[in-house]
Amino acid sequence: MTTIQATVPLTKIAQQTRAAASQLGVLSTEAKNQALEAIAQALESAKEEILQGNIADCEAALAEGIAKPLYKRLQLDEHKLRDAIVGVRDVAKLADPVGQVQIHREIDNGLILKRITCPLGVLGIIFEARPEAAIQIVSLAIKSGNGVILKGGKEALRSCEAIVKAIKQGLSQTSVHPDAVQLLTTREEILELLHLDKYVDLIIPRGSNSFVRFVQENTRIPVLGHADGICHLYVDQAADIEKAIQITVDAKTQYPAACNAIETLLVHSNIAAEFLPQVAASLQANHVELRGDERTLKILNHISSATPTDWETEYSDLILSVKIVDSLDEAISHIHTFGSRHTEAIITEDLQAAATFQALVNAAGVYHNCSTRFADGFRYGFGAEVGISTQQMPPRGPVGLEGLVTYKYQMTGDGHIVSTYTGANAKSFTHKDLI
Amino acid sequence: MTTIQATVPLTKIAQQTRAAASQLGVLSTEAKNQALEAIAQALESAKEEILQGNIADCEAALAEGIAKPLYKRLQLDEHKLRDAIVGVRDVAKLADPVGQVQIHREIDNGLILKRITCPLGVLGIIFEARPEAAIQIVSLAIKSGNGVILKGGKEALRSCEAIVKAIKQGLSQTSVHPDAVQLLTTREEILELLHLDKYVDLIIPRGSNSFVRFVQENTRIPVLGHADGICHLYVDQAADIEKAIQITVDAKTQYPAACNAIETLLVHSNIAAEFLPQVAASLQANHVELRGDERTLKILNHISSATPTDWETEYSDLILSVKIVDSLDEAISHIHTFGSRHTEAIITEDLQAAATFQALVNAAGVYHNCSTRFADGFRYGFGAEVGISTQQMPPRGPVGLEGLVTYKYQMTGDGHIVSTYTGANAKSFTHKDLI
Repeated sequence: MTTIQATVPLTKIAQQTRAAASQLGVLSTEAKNQALEAIAQALESAKEEILQGNIADCEAALAEGIAKPLYKRLQLDEHKLRDAIVGVRDVAKLADPVGQVQIHREIDNGLILKRITCPLGVLGIIFEARPEAAIQIVSLAIKSGNGVILKGGKEALRSCEAIVKAIKQGLSQTSVHPDAVQLLTTREEILELLHLDKYVDLIIPRGSNSFVRFVQENTRIPVLGHADGICHLYVDQAADIEKAIQITVDAKTQYPAACNAIETLLVHSNIAAEFLPQVAASLQANHVELRGDERTLKILNHISSATPTDWETEYSDLILSVKIVDSLDEAISHIHTFGSRHTEAIITEDLQAAATFQALVNAAGVYHNCSTRFADGFRYGFGAEVGISTQQMPPRGPVGLEGLVTYKYQMTGDGHIVSTYTGANAKSFTHKDLI
Repeated sequence: MTTIQATVPLTKIAQQTRAAASQLGVLSTEAKNQALEAIAQALESAKEEILQGNIADCEAALAEGIAKPLYKRLQLDEHKLRDAIVGVRDVAKLADPVGQVQIHREIDNGLILKRITCPLGVLGIIFEARPEAAIQIVSLAIKSGNGVILKGGKEALRSCEAIVKAIKQGLSQTSVHPDAVQLLTTREEILELLHLDKYVDLIIPRGSNSFVRFVQENTRIPVLGHADGICHLYVDQAADIEKAIQITVDAKTQYPAACNAIETLLVHSNIAAEFLPQVAASLQANHVELRGDERTLKILNHISSATPTDWETEYSDLILSVKIVDSLDEAISHIHTFGSRHTEAIITEDLQAAATFQALVNAAGVYHNCSTRFADGFRYGFGAEVGISTQQMPPRGPVGLEGLVTYKYQMTGDGHIVSTYTGANAKSFTHKDLI
């Protein structure tokens, strides 16, 4: 497979993907769901081959001295594969994001406008070691009517090849042309993919912050994702201390590597002396290293001092910087200087302060009295998460299938022309909504 | 004013705009509408000053030998100014795009998620000679809660200065800080503005295709607009010839400089011999120059020959290229090769052909039996048009106030943490929609 792909230029592959995607884009929900079921069955049939491929990947990675967390992500056992196949069938159960009528309006008698959702076209997805990510991504692409060009981590090459081979084999029995799903296998192809703005409509990078930033800076194709996740928790002077402690511990320790985990705790000076020793005890019991500003150190004299770099660092680890502020305004100002517009939270019983925080803080998520860790497509009830966007323009925050579709305006008339509606005897539009 | 601005660095201006926009973003609909009324009144009071500024601009432009169409756009008489002021009050009557609840969902008892629209922040708007464009743009920005940095054409400098001075004066009596509206006066500042991705959230360029392309290629800020408008009309074999002629004439001649005017007529070979002579007569009666492909020239032997460049040219003039195709597929293929994804139309009485065209053609607008000239925010019933986007991702097509807002997720709990919902005794989410 590697040899064959290496001889086919990427633009040719992209054109084939677009042609297949064009057919896929107009299929019925039922036809797409049948394709998903065929994929699930093909993956079940190819189980041994996929697991063997993964064992070979793992052995090669171990021989090259792969880091332990990466190795864990690379490993695909029977359970993980079974869960991924369950995931394919779960995606089939989701509502079809394509064909939704957003506007249905009479412009004039017999002149009807519809705004209707449609697939984006072709997705370019670059993901890290986890081979089962390919399965999830392909399911979401098919469900949303998009073709997909995949590039997995080089460690997972054999696993991904076995997975994509099975997927294509499954699709070959369905209305979806197997060309709708493509796998790139060489590192050089990443940059080439990023330059294919004529053939690829959205890039979704899944990897380290620096990798996402590299992608953002090297393509004119829209990118769905986020480089940094620097989230803050602000404990207001009117906070309930018990809630504040529980939420701080959850937001920092429940999964510290997640982008929605907090990196900095902001504490109002009026509550600091009471709150900080208690939260510090709970955090330290959970092995969290604390780094405080000068005023924090006066209360917690056993912790290390935060440097200016700390405020702009996503630790992705059991480390938390702590800063005392004198007002809600100062907290918001700190968040706007150092935050990455991901998810920001306030703990307070003062509803006015909460409302001000949620109105003024510019971030995809603005939370009151709950953990930032809720920022997730599944927890939001989207049924799937395509990525989390920290851009200002929609789609913003956790993005479900909705992020893989766009819309078009369909207008149908009966010989209607614009000159009827202009000039001295201009006819008026009716502009009557039909939904 | 020029002197003062020249001494203030642009980042400083942008920071001031953002600060003012942050306050503006949370104002009530009523407060924003009051600000719009204050602007309308201030413009009325400053009428003489604005018209004098425009006369000075026009005299200077004439002395420099300005082109006639540009001169017409530059001219601001009492009627145009009055209409622009009416426009301000019309914008006040539009629904507030901010604060709309798009999702309202119970995640669990006492844990409530809302997705709510909010302003983008700061808009950067670069427009051509028409000075009254500044009035319209400022109205739309205020209504949508955004700050705005304006850069008008250099020919319109004095007019724009008088307009913005009046607007700021009007705002000084309201809840909107006058810093929310800024005017840049030097050409160098355009490039500087395009690099302010930390302070400007959306760029809207209004000008020539080459200018829009320049903007798109020189900024990392999202751009709302389109470079080309190469629209096609496909006359199918099952077209009603009378409708086809009327729509062709309207789509080409009703306003040939518009981006939604057609540039190429595609005609099915089965209808060409009957249709082409008739439509050619009507078009030529409207002074349209026709350029045909080889097969067209066999039917219309008095017209000139189209070169390959014609298919990719937006004439913005009374010129139309004509090509005969043998199938709907061939028409779609031509459109996908040369179209700019703006607006594409089919004329046919064959509903199946129309449905196929509207499903398969990838463009912001896909029309059946009506003129492409309907592609316009006012005609769609949006009440305003911010721009027309030919990008694949939303907002796409004619964009109203909706294009100037984004959304944020507000979540409110009562001490809710994620660890409650994970692990062995994980609680389930309720995910109950409340709207």
